Amino acid sequence: VIVEIISTGNELLMGEVTNTNSTWLARILTDLGFEVRRITIVGDDLLEIASSIKEALVRGASVIILTGGLGPTPDDLTARALSLALNRRLELNEEALSMVARECGKRGVELNQWRRKMAYMPKGSRPLPNPLGMAPAIMIETDGRFLFALPGVPKEAYAIFKGSVLPILRKLSAKIGLKVRKSRYLIAGIREADIAPLLLELRKQVPELYVKTRVTARGIELLIQWRSSKVTSDVEYMVKDLLEKLKQKGVLIKELYQ
Amino acid sequence: VIVEIISTGNELLMGEVTNTNSTWLARILTDLGFEVRRITIVGDDLLEIASSIKEALVRGASVIILTGGLGPTPDDLTARALSLALNRRLELNEEALSMVARECGKRGVELNQWRRKMAYMPKGSRPLPNPLGMAPAIMIETDGRFLFALPGVPKEAYAIFKGSVLPILRKLSAKIGLKVRKSRYLIAGIREADIAPLLLELRKQVPELYVKTRVTARGIELLIQWRSSKVTSDVEYMVKDLLEKLKQKGVLIKELYQ
Repeated sequence: VIVEIISTGNELLMGEVTNTNSTWLARILTDLGFEVRRITIVGDDLLEIASSIKEALVRGASVIILTGGLGPTPDDLTARALSLALNRRLELNEEALSMVARECGKRGVELNQWRRKMAYMPKGSRPLPNPLGMAPAIMIETDGRFLFALPGVPKEAYAIFKGSVLPILRKLSAKIGLKVRKSRYLIAGIREADIAPLLLELRKQVPELYVKTRVTARGIELLIQWRSSKVTSDVEYMVKDLLEKLKQKGVLIKELYQ
Repeated sequence: VIVEIISTGNELLMGEVTNTNSTWLARILTDLGFEVRRITIVGDDLLEIASSIKEALVRGASVIILTGGLGPTPDDLTARALSLALNRRLELNEEALSMVARECGKRGVELNQWRRKMAYMPKGSRPLPNPLGMAPAIMIETDGRFLFALPGVPKEAYAIFKGSVLPILRKLSAKIGLKVRKSRYLIAGIREADIAPLLLELRKQVPELYVKTRVTARGIELLIQWRSSKVTSDVEYMVKDLLEKLKQKGVLIKELYQ
């Protein structure tokens, strides 16, 4: 199941802020067995956001997660961009409005036109409650595909993801039977270029395997991951074999845990 | 001048690593007056990388900066993807080879086929020296457009950028006369939704202006930025006027410095 993440915000394109939302999103989605195929950052521009959504749909993403652009200011354009991309009318969502109104009440602030704006969503949207902020998130299901729009503020995005999005994706992952196995090793005493031939051989034998080395300050990190549950015993044997070969070369290997 | 950044690496799509390269790249490019229009992350996949390069060219990017995928391992595919996207033959670049050979000599390691791989570049490439690693970066100029491919390791990417890419972009920025002004304020005592109407008004008066608020733990950060140097005095007056209006509402404002 292919997933794309689209983060919006000029502050990201200007390097004012690092896109950390996509990191934890990608990690959790990967651990659930989804394949994050692309992460895109676009600015607070209606056509740019709408195009990036359409492009992800055309590329075949079954799940699209957007972050940013749900707030009250005029440059918060995600709901309108979703409307445009999916060709659905933007309308006042009554459930969303009552969420926003409740938050206004709690905080003792007026439900003005700017705050009402946060309750406008594409027709057929399901608003997801925001336990830490005022703007509800948006969920749209269309032709078996899921689109989620989360706020840009990381704490709010994470709270909504955990509370409302994760349960849905967990169910989806279980229904399809997605499984993932991940092993991570720290390797010392060999250069990246000298591991390459061994990894290439392993990959040729097991194309389902995802193998990646990365040079860090601590040494070379080796990540071995596979999705298919069928080949588990074979893969486990081959990975053991690779590690044995490395050990025979005098390489130090330490398994890392998440 | 439109810039796009393309970062490659499965580790980014799996949430193992946060894409910090694009943050400092975007900030420096923005400060030089360039407009970063899109940041894309794709995996270590030849067609994905090549497509993302072609898409950026089609969208009209004049400068494309890639990070990642220059190393010795088989999943380092950026040079091949550039060849494919630009329809230029991949060939052994003699200057790059001598850079790699020199590094091998320094480190006392063998110049094997994996290390030679780092010297293969699209025809017409200019290799850029890597003061901190073995893989040279790649620069390609085509029809007045510039493509740069930097390594994924942040320290190496930054060293090459500073040493070889920045001087070129600085010259380009000066030649075109790009200028940028940026003011940043910390605001307390008002809600984001209550600033919105004031900012909308300011934007209507000065469409060249980029105005953005962001809720942080410290308060609301307001960023006001503009590129055009023509309207400077007008803009300065209007911004002052906005800040005055806010102050009259009892809002606390502090100017922030970079």
